[in-house]
Amino acid sequence: VRSAVLEAAVAVLIDKGTERFSIAEVARLAGVHETSIYRRWGTMEALVVDACLRVSEAAIPIPDTGSLRADLVALLDRLVAQLVSPRGRALLATTAARGPHAFAVRRSLFRQRFDLVRAIFDRAVARGEFSRGVDPAPLIEALVAPLYFRLIVTGEPIKEWPRNQMIDRLLAGYRATR
Amino acid sequence: VRSAVLEAAVAVLIDKGTERFSIAEVARLAGVHETSIYRRWGTMEALVVDACLRVSEAAIPIPDTGSLRADLVALLDRLVAQLVSPRGRALLATTAARGPHAFAVRRSLFRQRFDLVRAIFDRAVARGEFSRGVDPAPLIEALVAPLYFRLIVTGEPIKEWPRNQMIDRLLAGYRATR
Repeated sequence: VRSAVLEAAVAVLIDKGTERFSIAEVARLAGVHETSIYRRWGTMEALVVDACLRVSEAAIPIPDTGSLRADLVALLDRLVAQLVSPRGRALLATTAARGPHAFAVRRSLFRQRFDLVRAIFDRAVARGEFSRGVDPAPLIEALVAPLYFRLIVTGEPIKEWPRNQMIDRLLAGYRATR
Repeated sequence: VRSAVLEAAVAVLIDKGTERFSIAEVARLAGVHETSIYRRWGTMEALVVDACLRVSEAAIPIPDTGSLRADLVALLDRLVAQLVSPRGRALLATTAARGPHAFAVRRSLFRQRFDLVRAIFDRAVARGEFSRGVDPAPLIEALVAPLYFRLIVTGEPIKEWPRNQMIDRLLAGYRATR
């Protein structure tokens, strides 16, 4: 049931966006009662965040290759593949939509995804590849934000963004400024 | 006349967005004939790009402090101030709008702004602070994109983004990977 509801939620999100999202429509598509959805998720924001997290977990699993550089390369490879996929393109419209629901959903979603990505850096700290006590969030943003910037703002092709070079430069910069 | 038309174009852009932008309304606001606007700018895209470039040039002049680091600090200080200003906030909605006009305008606008910012790196190359032949665009994107990413996508506060630390890390990373 959970899986059917989350799948239906993604379909409604792509079709209607965050501000016109309808739990009634999700219930109809998934063949469940609206009340079961409200009982389990409470709000539409919680449902949409859960549905998006499930898409991200399946499309962009958090890598554990044994090296920070290889983990970041794998992570960005998966993110780029997801962003250019049909579902990624369909979801992109919701990524820049404005409105109170949209911001609440994205803030929660990106915080939870960034928290998952921190595991990469925790393991890197344990291996001595990254300084303990340094917040990795600005490094992750420096690698992720240019992809969204190109897709949403400038329209420049994301495949041409030199992500492996930027990973090397950022890791070298973090080492040099320890 | 040019100044009045560009000022009116910014007002119409903020009011109507890129896809519903109207040259007739710009003409009315500026008190000029539509045909004069078409004669001078040719298309609405050219007019909107010119109007936005004028806003950027006034709000975010390209610094020339004598050091690459100080130039980047000054540039980002101005960019943050502009993005949180009333006009910057009003223009932000157009930054993520979708549609053929919107993408044509932003692609041209950001290419022209990035070309202006290259002057900072040309001077840095002459002073031996930056490698000749290295494209500075990904470095600029790594500094600029997180601001737009926070404002448009995640909603995290841009004032908390550690821009001076990221400038230091990126410059150190570019030096280390020469």
